[in-house]
Amino acid sequence: MSYSESLSKALGSMGAVEGTKMVIERDGRTFTGTLMPHHEFSAPDVVILKMKSGYNVGVKITESTTMKVLEAPVERVKKDAEVEFRKGLPKIVLIGTGGTIASYVDYRTGAVHPALSTSDMVNAVPEIRDIANIDARVLFSIFSENMNVEHWQQLAQAVADEINAGADAIIIPHGTDTMGYTAAALSFMLGDVPKPVVLVGAQRSSDRPSSDASSNLMACARFCTKAGRAGVYVVMHDTSGDDSFAVHYGTRVRKMHTSRRDAFKSINAAPVAHLDKDGKMDVAIDGPPTGDAKAVARTGMERSCVLLQYYPGMDPALFEDIFMKSKGVVISGSGLGHVNENMIPLIKRACDNGTVVVLTSQCLNGRTNLNVYNTGRDMLSAGVVTVEDMLPETAYVKLMWALANTSSVEEAKEVMRTPIANEMSDRRVIDV
Amino acid sequence: MSYSESLSKALGSMGAVEGTKMVIERDGRTFTGTLMPHHEFSAPDVVILKMKSGYNVGVKITESTTMKVLEAPVERVKKDAEVEFRKGLPKIVLIGTGGTIASYVDYRTGAVHPALSTSDMVNAVPEIRDIANIDARVLFSIFSENMNVEHWQQLAQAVADEINAGADAIIIPHGTDTMGYTAAALSFMLGDVPKPVVLVGAQRSSDRPSSDASSNLMACARFCTKAGRAGVYVVMHDTSGDDSFAVHYGTRVRKMHTSRRDAFKSINAAPVAHLDKDGKMDVAIDGPPTGDAKAVARTGMERSCVLLQYYPGMDPALFEDIFMKSKGVVISGSGLGHVNENMIPLIKRACDNGTVVVLTSQCLNGRTNLNVYNTGRDMLSAGVVTVEDMLPETAYVKLMWALANTSSVEEAKEVMRTPIANEMSDRRVIDV
Repeated sequence: MSYSESLSKALGSMGAVEGTKMVIERDGRTFTGTLMPHHEFSAPDVVILKMKSGYNVGVKITESTTMKVLEAPVERVKKDAEVEFRKGLPKIVLIGTGGTIASYVDYRTGAVHPALSTSDMVNAVPEIRDIANIDARVLFSIFSENMNVEHWQQLAQAVADEINAGADAIIIPHGTDTMGYTAAALSFMLGDVPKPVVLVGAQRSSDRPSSDASSNLMACARFCTKAGRAGVYVVMHDTSGDDSFAVHYGTRVRKMHTSRRDAFKSINAAPVAHLDKDGKMDVAIDGPPTGDAKAVARTGMERSCVLLQYYPGMDPALFEDIFMKSKGVVISGSGLGHVNENMIPLIKRACDNGTVVVLTSQCLNGRTNLNVYNTGRDMLSAGVVTVEDMLPETAYVKLMWALANTSSVEEAKEVMRTPIANEMSDRRVIDV
Repeated sequence: MSYSESLSKALGSMGAVEGTKMVIERDGRTFTGTLMPHHEFSAPDVVILKMKSGYNVGVKITESTTMKVLEAPVERVKKDAEVEFRKGLPKIVLIGTGGTIASYVDYRTGAVHPALSTSDMVNAVPEIRDIANIDARVLFSIFSENMNVEHWQQLAQAVADEINAGADAIIIPHGTDTMGYTAAALSFMLGDVPKPVVLVGAQRSSDRPSSDASSNLMACARFCTKAGRAGVYVVMHDTSGDDSFAVHYGTRVRKMHTSRRDAFKSINAAPVAHLDKDGKMDVAIDGPPTGDAKAVARTGMERSCVLLQYYPGMDPALFEDIFMKSKGVVISGSGLGHVNENMIPLIKRACDNGTVVVLTSQCLNGRTNLNVYNTGRDMLSAGVVTVEDMLPETAYVKLMWALANTSSVEEAKEVMRTPIANEMSDRRVIDV
């Protein structure tokens, strides 16, 4: 839906476009802010302003409303200056995907949209050029809630291609919503990747004083150039201050807060490393060094997989089709990995039918164990696969990958039970 | 499935029954442990022993196996001694539901089963009789993964009945798997309940040295008698030591670890109170005092509700029926409460069809906000309800309750948006 004809004319006549700072008075109230793009679901007579507070206000324009332009939009100057190649510095390739970290360009309009230029993002952190030669390319420009399995596949291939073309490290600026899922997908798809592949995001866009975009990106580049470490990782704020950054395994990290800058936490594992704001790095867990092997992306994914949370009252009849038609089902069960006993016959039928059913825990922290209580033993007898302390989200991603990269259900199950990308810790072997 | 005839005879002839300590030798290996109940999914020639380590071992009995009884099962002496009524002490009614906290009776057999006697549990904590007169009754004896909506309804009614019959406080020993869900259900069903109604569990059964059963129960009784506080709460270990206990709102608490004793955490709220092992209580948040009003249980629940976690790759076609046939759908979206844009048309059709779709966040911590990004605004336009910082599980329970206790979809939505049992904090009111 667009503006009504009269409103469109009124705005046009005063030269108000997206990004224009304006003041609107209606019924004795004054609204001052930056004109936002008209939203397709907004009514045709509503103007949206982003106020100083950061909140949007929708103001209905009636005959008694007055509107005035305060300031034309500031054009962001594109600094695509020639950048000198500096010999001896490693080459980092930034592969842009979108997200808040890449959102400052459009933020001049007051609206948060994925930006178009990854080099813009690098230019905002000029000191990054002191530690590496940076190449930047945009692969997508979307918010990460819209990332899909196909995006993961293209991204993994792009990473492998860049490494095989000479990149010493890959940085992937990414929206935070599903960054953990993407990181897990890259971890499995890229296997023994010989270089660091590091996802980084921001919880606040870069035009806000509290933005974590630049500091996260810088910490990420430092880890890439200083740690000598191969593998897929996520770098984000470790605390709510601007002075500590954590490096997480791509398979162990989860967004645990909707808005805090230290939203990302390693679950069932310690962060691999910490960095401070000056670049001092403290590596807590050793890992594979970088090497010169060829990067290979095994991007096959079985799409017929689902992730379900168990809850009391879950009706097996309602989930019948999903269990029986899917190739893979990951359940985040209660406690040690349980479901209500009335779900077990359906799980058994699905397993008998060739569906791989994987049990994880909605507690997130801790290890599943189906050997303690009857319900658990019934589930094991029904044929479920347990995956120790693997996150539900990681198990879902791994299951898609395991089913597409093996030639039998049994083989896929064995892959699920075997740690391949730090996604689970060694099982406690129980003597049976 | 039961034992094979020959194995059944062999066990019978040596007097081996559940709880018998025995030693089995096979192929040069020796297994010593306590005979467990035969499991229906176990093969007929397998004997299950619980070993000293706490793990179970299944031993296949062949012709070359030798079995020997070491010790007959110890009969647990039931201490149902006459308990003196002590004037001046408050009356606490324990309503047993099962779970690990009530599991020690059967633990003599090595198997964890819900116990039958709640008074057994009280007798294990004799000091509780110093601070209250205790009545105990068993309502169910199940593990909490098998708790269902009907159990919540019966439990809420039983609580109201006991309060109206003179109880000063209700303690509900409960399995930990779904204790958070039950606590939320009681919070809504019991509304302005005039007495403390406190759920308590244990992560380790009481025959283990590390059991938290008695200490949690004692902390719970102390809160009930000392705080003068009405409402529904959960009491569990606050730290992994035995010296600190936390009192959580029934609507804000979540099991966040599969096995740790301090698994229960208040999310998006501080614990209401802390107690130490000597009973010293520190109340952090004020609340309603106890009173003498009648307790009312509004137990209606709309069963046609589901809880779904959004994940990349979620296929709207697969979830079509669930969205279109359910009266209520709670989604734990990504980040601020998002889903992939390809889910939005289905959400819109469901909303148009009269389904109440509620958005929460799988981050668990933090507040949803659909006003920041386009995806969120599209979801709002589609008709979803947001519930600030409410837990997904609590939103699911509340939605069932709201739909059954209102007369229209609009009214149910308004109930969802209104805090009624500390389940959400006041919205930031945005001027629109």
